[in-house]
Amino acid sequence: MALIVQKFGGTSLGTVERIEGVADKIAGFRGDGHDVVVVVSAMSGETNRLMDLAAQVLPEGSTPRELDVLLSTGEQVTTALLSMALHKLGVNARSYTGSQVRILTDDVHTKARILHIDDVNICTDLKQGKVVVVAGFQGVDDQGNITTLGRGGSDTTAVALAAALNADECQIYTDVDGVYTTDPRVVDGARRLEKITFEEMLEMASMGSKVLQIRSVEFAGKYSVPLRVMSSFEDGPGTLITLEEDAAVEAPAIAGIAFNRDEAKLTVLGVPDIPGVAYRILGPIGEANIEVDVILQNIGEDAKTDFTFTVGRNDLSQSQRILERTITELGAQELRVDAKIAKVSVVGVGMRSHAGVASRMFRALADVGVNIQMISTSEIKISVIIEEKFLELAVRTLHSAFELDAEPDSQGAAD
Amino acid sequence: MALIVQKFGGTSLGTVERIEGVADKIAGFRGDGHDVVVVVSAMSGETNRLMDLAAQVLPEGSTPRELDVLLSTGEQVTTALLSMALHKLGVNARSYTGSQVRILTDDVHTKARILHIDDVNICTDLKQGKVVVVAGFQGVDDQGNITTLGRGGSDTTAVALAAALNADECQIYTDVDGVYTTDPRVVDGARRLEKITFEEMLEMASMGSKVLQIRSVEFAGKYSVPLRVMSSFEDGPGTLITLEEDAAVEAPAIAGIAFNRDEAKLTVLGVPDIPGVAYRILGPIGEANIEVDVILQNIGEDAKTDFTFTVGRNDLSQSQRILERTITELGAQELRVDAKIAKVSVVGVGMRSHAGVASRMFRALADVGVNIQMISTSEIKISVIIEEKFLELAVRTLHSAFELDAEPDSQGAAD
Repeated sequence: MALIVQKFGGTSLGTVERIEGVADKIAGFRGDGHDVVVVVSAMSGETNRLMDLAAQVLPEGSTPRELDVLLSTGEQVTTALLSMALHKLGVNARSYTGSQVRILTDDVHTKARILHIDDVNICTDLKQGKVVVVAGFQGVDDQGNITTLGRGGSDTTAVALAAALNADECQIYTDVDGVYTTDPRVVDGARRLEKITFEEMLEMASMGSKVLQIRSVEFAGKYSVPLRVMSSFEDGPGTLITLEEDAAVEAPAIAGIAFNRDEAKLTVLGVPDIPGVAYRILGPIGEANIEVDVILQNIGEDAKTDFTFTVGRNDLSQSQRILERTITELGAQELRVDAKIAKVSVVGVGMRSHAGVASRMFRALADVGVNIQMISTSEIKISVIIEEKFLELAVRTLHSAFELDAEPDSQGAAD
Repeated sequence: MALIVQKFGGTSLGTVERIEGVADKIAGFRGDGHDVVVVVSAMSGETNRLMDLAAQVLPEGSTPRELDVLLSTGEQVTTALLSMALHKLGVNARSYTGSQVRILTDDVHTKARILHIDDVNICTDLKQGKVVVVAGFQGVDDQGNITTLGRGGSDTTAVALAAALNADECQIYTDVDGVYTTDPRVVDGARRLEKITFEEMLEMASMGSKVLQIRSVEFAGKYSVPLRVMSSFEDGPGTLITLEEDAAVEAPAIAGIAFNRDEAKLTVLGVPDIPGVAYRILGPIGEANIEVDVILQNIGEDAKTDFTFTVGRNDLSQSQRILERTITELGAQELRVDAKIAKVSVVGVGMRSHAGVASRMFRALADVGVNIQMISTSEIKISVIIEEKFLELAVRTLHSAFELDAEPDSQGAAD
């Protein structure tokens, strides 16, 4: 008999029928004797409907306090409907807004951070055998103002509640049945992972596997909350995201292959090789709130250097405008941009103790004729920037090279 | 410079454009230097949309706590949108849910009663020059559960706030421009009243002039809150609902003619004339939560009596079924029902001091050949039950007979 926090997203709750399906699932867990706290998002489409109303009134968008009052109703509606659906199944349930729980946040409207969760009311209800249904995405500041945590904040609510309640597991229900070794649409042999570490998940998530909000994974890692990604629509164990020591016993070197097509590359050629150049190029980019990913500086000839970095493709034209000013100021030679690139990464905590991951990766890509433009490494990840047209080929090649389509046991033996 | 509480209903706030119109109106009052507290309903259609969602989940309708959580979001959305629209006009505004105010109620979900209003937050905002926008219809019980006051409860919220804040006036904005001497669709010469007393308004309202919720009028009378009914869509002074001493200076005998087509008549013939008959007939009706209006008992011959009463037309068939059992038990002779009746009433606090109102009423109806089936009187009202087909004729006749189409001055002189 465990205490489980379950989070259901907007798609899982998009219609009355789906809400009833979720209620069935919860009733099953309750019937097995588990204590259940449920965190819900707004029904799919509802947040957009409310945003649209706000945009009609204030096209420029400027009263974050009132936007939070407005948006928080979306989750409140779902808590009530799901509680009703549970009552219909004979399950005693009770809804909570963020302020009723009380989920105390700072006062940064539309992107508040959780400071403290008061668990007294929830614990009382659980002791009485009730299922507790909490509105995700929202909280209240110390003045009683309604706050929201930003898009995807319901995942964060679930993890924070699981941490506060010391839950045995936090289950995030989505429309996929787990975390895969890579995107199954690209590689037929992509395999669902039984387990993945928080760090690996962060690397996978930040590169486009949008299964979970990064913040909620960070939070779960920080508070050691076992997190499980599961499907709302199919039965199955999903993927458990856990601490390294729990996952590492038979951990293969590589957990998966991540990739991202949404980057673009900018190269400043012929920059005078003087101290502070990197700051003078990237400073104005950062001030414009543009995130820079991979950075490469070549040492060139004649006290000149080439400076290359990647940004999100949406930020390319703005970055270009900013750099054109910088080039004049620096007396650099030329700016080249390339939007037709992609990033492919091998991710795995196991590479810390397994030598040769990088060389195996580069050899595999060379064998199929994929040219590497840039390389970036971290402790648990090696990323390469390549021409976009080689993306699928590179992902499939690496998936095979690291034997990710094999079951973990055989893979462990082979490694 | 006054403190004004203004209540806007769902029709006045039904679209983004209308919300902006209401914001304009409020900004005008604020510009004149008044302190303004605004109470809003849900956008028209929204409460029905939410009720419909609840009905899909729980057709039998049985979790009032969750229904309140659901429905209260309707008003919350409007407070946010109206506050945004005010910000757009440069008016500093701040939204409040019932629980943020805090409007403390009892715990009778879906029809809670207000126990206390905490005005600290509102007073602080008003002192800072802010317009306060409060969600009508909702409150919070002493356990922090969201409650609602029942349909039309936003009027009650407005009056209760006006009482708590000791406001100079509580303005109820609707789609009519005031209270009329009778329904202008029936009598061309119907005239908007400048003033009407709370008691007269109660009698007018309970007979189908659905301008205001009865409970809010009772509440305003109890706490002597000057109440003004005004149009959201046209300028004009509306009708002031006030204490008798304020209104009575030039008060005519009769304020208006009210009527109601929604009643039906049941007559039990040949009832044994023994003590307790009225109770034995009406007891089971009351137990079925059916409200009885006019009651008449004729003393007949041979220790037999006839017993007649009226109920809402919707309750007729249920009343009939109940009475058929009663008749057998009592050994009464026969049950006759008549759904084709109407009630017409003359209403006015002035009739207390003006003799002859009843005789003038009966003579006027007799002159045009309208037969009176039942008569019921109170201190400030005389009602008659007539055949439904005579309703318009009777209303027009009485409107003329009491010179209600004339201006109050000339009417006062003639009376």
